[in-house]
Amino acid sequence: MKTYLDCIPCFFRQGLTGARLFTKDKEKQRKILEEIAKEIPSISLDNTPPQMGRKIHLIIKKTTNSPDPYKKIKEKYNKIALKLYPRLKNEVKKAKDPLLTAIRVAIIGNVIDFGAPFHLNLEQEIKTILNQEFSIFDYAKFKKALSKTEEILYLGDNSSEVAFDKILIEQLNRKVTYVVRERPIINDATLEDALFFGMDKIAKVLSSGCDAPGTILSLCSKEFITYYNSSELIISKGQGNYESLSGENSPLFFLLKAKCPIIARDLGCREGDIVLKSIK
Amino acid sequence: MKTYLDCIPCFFRQGLTGARLFTKDKEKQRKILEEIAKEIPSISLDNTPPQMGRKIHLIIKKTTNSPDPYKKIKEKYNKIALKLYPRLKNEVKKAKDPLLTAIRVAIIGNVIDFGAPFHLNLEQEIKTILNQEFSIFDYAKFKKALSKTEEILYLGDNSSEVAFDKILIEQLNRKVTYVVRERPIINDATLEDALFFGMDKIAKVLSSGCDAPGTILSLCSKEFITYYNSSELIISKGQGNYESLSGENSPLFFLLKAKCPIIARDLGCREGDIVLKSIK
Repeated sequence: MKTYLDCIPCFFRQGLTGARLFTKDKEKQRKILEEIAKEIPSISLDNTPPQMGRKIHLIIKKTTNSPDPYKKIKEKYNKIALKLYPRLKNEVKKAKDPLLTAIRVAIIGNVIDFGAPFHLNLEQEIKTILNQEFSIFDYAKFKKALSKTEEILYLGDNSSEVAFDKILIEQLNRKVTYVVRERPIINDATLEDALFFGMDKIAKVLSSGCDAPGTILSLCSKEFITYYNSSELIISKGQGNYESLSGENSPLFFLLKAKCPIIARDLGCREGDIVLKSIK
Repeated sequence: MKTYLDCIPCFFRQGLTGARLFTKDKEKQRKILEEIAKEIPSISLDNTPPQMGRKIHLIIKKTTNSPDPYKKIKEKYNKIALKLYPRLKNEVKKAKDPLLTAIRVAIIGNVIDFGAPFHLNLEQEIKTILNQEFSIFDYAKFKKALSKTEEILYLGDNSSEVAFDKILIEQLNRKVTYVVRERPIINDATLEDALFFGMDKIAKVLSSGCDAPGTILSLCSKEFITYYNSSELIISKGQGNYESLSGENSPLFFLLKAKCPIIARDLGCREGDIVLKSIK
């Protein structure tokens, strides 16, 4: 997805939200907004939004001198997600269509995102998403692709989401490579988060090499690109991965909740909708 | 009200909304956002938001070479407001407390504001505001001030709001000076709008001399300042006038609907609340 002009006010909102998590110093918060303003003339609208997202968080880290400002809040939500695991695992077990329920569970994890405007009522989200209609639902195509492959590349998104992804991966019953970000960015999943949830017990955990809040192929490692290019089925979680990969001609299935009106418009759905979308 | 850091993302949103009303040229829209970005380092947070609002709209006018881009949409809503006048006049006539209902009617006019995020359902707003509880309600104080004065300075806000203000002014039964902006800015009321609604038949219409979307005293004419300083009762309509005058030690009564979370927080109320607030 390219950068829309609507993303520009949102870059400042993201910057301010992030700045406030890192520092109470209003001068530093303001400095961060000024540094973002300096970047505006050089943004190419042909770039994807996570490219600017990456710059914003580099500015925040540099200005606040904090390598991982979201660490504490990630830990808090990781613990919450870990507690939810048995209950949601049970939802899948007792479901009529366990694969579909596991897909819904993976989307529930996607709401714990501190990059998007954040008003989380997790209990409400669980109830809603377990029963919500998909507005884009390439499920038949997904099952067909799944039946034809033994290996899956799974692109993770937010840290606590790993717990929910694990439930889907256990249900897929394939050899899975689970991809995390190279370094902490917002509350995105890193190697540390994957290990916290024991993802390494059921999948190979791989860094994309990219430290943006998405998967920008030009910034990814050679090792990741080798996996990416040879994959027959790629599950891509969340908005950041959608934003950075929706223009690619790859066997991608996007699994997300549309949490922003611009992404919803790009997808052809409404804000709040849930989506399982194939682009090939 | 001073400028909060939260106002900065909103300056870009206002700029983009305004830009899109004036031009379909995406390059020009982008240029406007870039020019706003250039202003960010020089914003003093001690200034009020309408000072930057004024700059944003000067940038839009200059970039699009359009002296009054809101002209058409203002005309459309002025006609809608004119049609509503007899019905709302009748609501006041049949009310138990006609003055209070006239105050509510004046607030209804305040929702027609293209500067704030705009999702207008006017019929719904009329029903709501005619019955809504005020969250700040200095009505007794207002009636006392009214009983002691023969003359009122009334600061207008948006163009179609003039129709609704007229109903309140007719009810006040005092000598009123009705203040409009010096030049078109967003959809704020100018002399032309006041004349369209026949405000000159029941009040003296005066320009503030200021072309910001508010009343910035340092930019106002000497004539206006003379009126302002000698007034015993000033009714100030809307957010822009609140933002620019809330720090003054004047006999002001602010009449508005809080359409933005930051102004609501500054007032000590919630977004969507209606307010009749005295600050002296």
